[in-house]
Amino acid sequence: MRLTIQKDHLVRSVQDVMKAVSSRTTIPILSGIKMVATVQEVTLTGSDSDISIESSIPAEEEGTIIAEVLQPGSIVLPARFFAEIVKKLPEDNVEIEVQNQFVTIIRSGKAEFSLNGLDAEEYPRLPQIKEENVFKLPTDLLKTMIRQTVFAVSTSETRPILTGVNWKVENGELICIATDSHRLALRKAKIEMDASLGYNVVIPGKSLNELSKILDDSNENVEIVITENQVLFKTKHLLFFSRLLDGNYPDTSRLIPADSQTDVIVNAKEFFQAIDRASLLAREGRNNVVKLTTLQDGIVEISSISPEIGKVTEEIQSESVEGEELKISFSAKYMMDALKALEGAEIKISFTGAMRPFVLRPLHSDSMLQLILPVRTY
Amino acid sequence: MRLTIQKDHLVRSVQDVMKAVSSRTTIPILSGIKMVATVQEVTLTGSDSDISIESSIPAEEEGTIIAEVLQPGSIVLPARFFAEIVKKLPEDNVEIEVQNQFVTIIRSGKAEFSLNGLDAEEYPRLPQIKEENVFKLPTDLLKTMIRQTVFAVSTSETRPILTGVNWKVENGELICIATDSHRLALRKAKIEMDASLGYNVVIPGKSLNELSKILDDSNENVEIVITENQVLFKTKHLLFFSRLLDGNYPDTSRLIPADSQTDVIVNAKEFFQAIDRASLLAREGRNNVVKLTTLQDGIVEISSISPEIGKVTEEIQSESVEGEELKISFSAKYMMDALKALEGAEIKISFTGAMRPFVLRPLHSDSMLQLILPVRTY
Repeated sequence: MRLTIQKDHLVRSVQDVMKAVSSRTTIPILSGIKMVATVQEVTLTGSDSDISIESSIPAEEEGTIIAEVLQPGSIVLPARFFAEIVKKLPEDNVEIEVQNQFVTIIRSGKAEFSLNGLDAEEYPRLPQIKEENVFKLPTDLLKTMIRQTVFAVSTSETRPILTGVNWKVENGELICIATDSHRLALRKAKIEMDASLGYNVVIPGKSLNELSKILDDSNENVEIVITENQVLFKTKHLLFFSRLLDGNYPDTSRLIPADSQTDVIVNAKEFFQAIDRASLLAREGRNNVVKLTTLQDGIVEISSISPEIGKVTEEIQSESVEGEELKISFSAKYMMDALKALEGAEIKISFTGAMRPFVLRPLHSDSMLQLILPVRTY
Repeated sequence: MRLTIQKDHLVRSVQDVMKAVSSRTTIPILSGIKMVATVQEVTLTGSDSDISIESSIPAEEEGTIIAEVLQPGSIVLPARFFAEIVKKLPEDNVEIEVQNQFVTIIRSGKAEFSLNGLDAEEYPRLPQIKEENVFKLPTDLLKTMIRQTVFAVSTSETRPILTGVNWKVENGELICIATDSHRLALRKAKIEMDASLGYNVVIPGKSLNELSKILDDSNENVEIVITENQVLFKTKHLLFFSRLLDGNYPDTSRLIPADSQTDVIVNAKEFFQAIDRASLLAREGRNNVVKLTTLQDGIVEISSISPEIGKVTEEIQSESVEGEELKISFSAKYMMDALKALEGAEIKISFTGAMRPFVLRPLHSDSMLQLILPVRTY
């Protein structure tokens, strides 16, 4: 293999595939990045066997030469060193040459690195995915849907299925649901796809977080292919594979109350800041619990007590309080996470008594909701 | 105690004194911030018993009311909570009122905090320092002198005296020296002071780091008072006390070679980047060692080998190489630290053979130097 390539393209591609490379891998070759050069393109691959990322750099784009492959071939290079080296090379132009025994020379300006590589034939093959039943989502919508749900996955391995986000495709709609059994996040969106098709899979939260980091903020489409045990996200120069989680995701639809006893509409920002202040002391107590009390004239009181340190009380003028009076306690962290995830200046919170889960929705959208279980304080 | 105060002044002052408050203190009252309110000013104090910081907020400044003290008094408030609370208060105006049993109310807008305080009488007194033989340094010069030396202090407690920076005042000059016995940093500056006076003290590196963080980048003078076991740095609204280290600092003057066998002049930035690249592989090997070799025509080769990973070689065109040929190995980290500390585009490196300490100086200044001990590689 022998080629010259533009440094900035190489740096970008290496950084993308590095997201899949784990420093704690037990499979030595997976601590490397695979590089394959053909006359048309240079392809880099990183993988931790759960996530695999392939990034391709075209030899030419819009009439500009990005890479010149003088001799096609392939090599696996130590990922961390390769990534740090390319980032710090002195010139815009980089020359890469594989010599005997996989020793690889990286040259730029007067700097010359020689790295001990590995045989690319030893690198695991990526899954072969038949591109049937592809559906598309704009990149920015996909990132938003991930952001609004993935924070609510469980971090505990007691129920591994809850560490993933449930993706359901039905009736031409994609529904993303995450829950750690203390709170639940739901986001849905219309997609263009044969309405007779349906999927119900669970994507690891970690995979979605990495995917979100790697995608640009653009409105270009991402193509999504779901198979029995893999999901593939495909953009112009990127393939992102993730395994799916085994097992059935719990049916969460019956968790969401259909009616409510108390409805409170608040300004999202004001409410968030009051919860944030109350949580300053709550954090010290058990579970970061704050208390919400409805008072007269649409006033809502947020309070918290930490006997050792002190207490805090704040009154908020809500837009409206309808239904029964209410005192309810909940985790300040869950409430702030939920408020951060929702869009819209005004949030409607629907309570069904102090002991039942309550639901937050933007006032003018039914495509997303956040559900929180209250905390028993007596 | 009862007062109202502008939030931004309070936040700033609390952040300053927080630098002295340790979360790991064994003296409970030192986990608090002392607040003393008189009609003229509000004073905050934080201390970890090594460093004490006092910040004062005038009641009025340039005709603007900053604080209004309705009832003078004092209190000690839990530092971490107090700091987080004031930062997140909703309005610009803050009301603070001490009630029975040191319970303190903090009010802003509709938010009301109640914090359990402690008796200010229990708070340790700050050292009384007689302000004799004060000398002055512009803040920016003081910060530069700290930055150029403090990184070279020892982080090991085997020789505690080396964890401090040696400050010598003699012949109207301040000389700051730090060494961890593998490298040495020296910076001097003229000061206005009675030339007959002299000091030779050791200030803990940690104190100088905290001082540097707390000082603005300005050219206003800092007043410095040195006593037998304390040093005081004084600005308009700030008193910064640090204890001094006990013991005699080693005489470092004979470490610095008077003559040299090889002198190399390099562009500081180019040289730094080449060392940085070589260190990418060196870091993996023992001690992060790189090798410098003088070649023909003023060319200097920087190289490093890490047998498992690979090797790197880079040639640099120096401004000049004078004297004997040289091969020498040294820590890339020490070299990069030294280059970062020095000022000036061109650096002169004076070697006295492969086994002797070498010295870096800016080409056009003799107020600073960096000394590095080479590493034996065979």
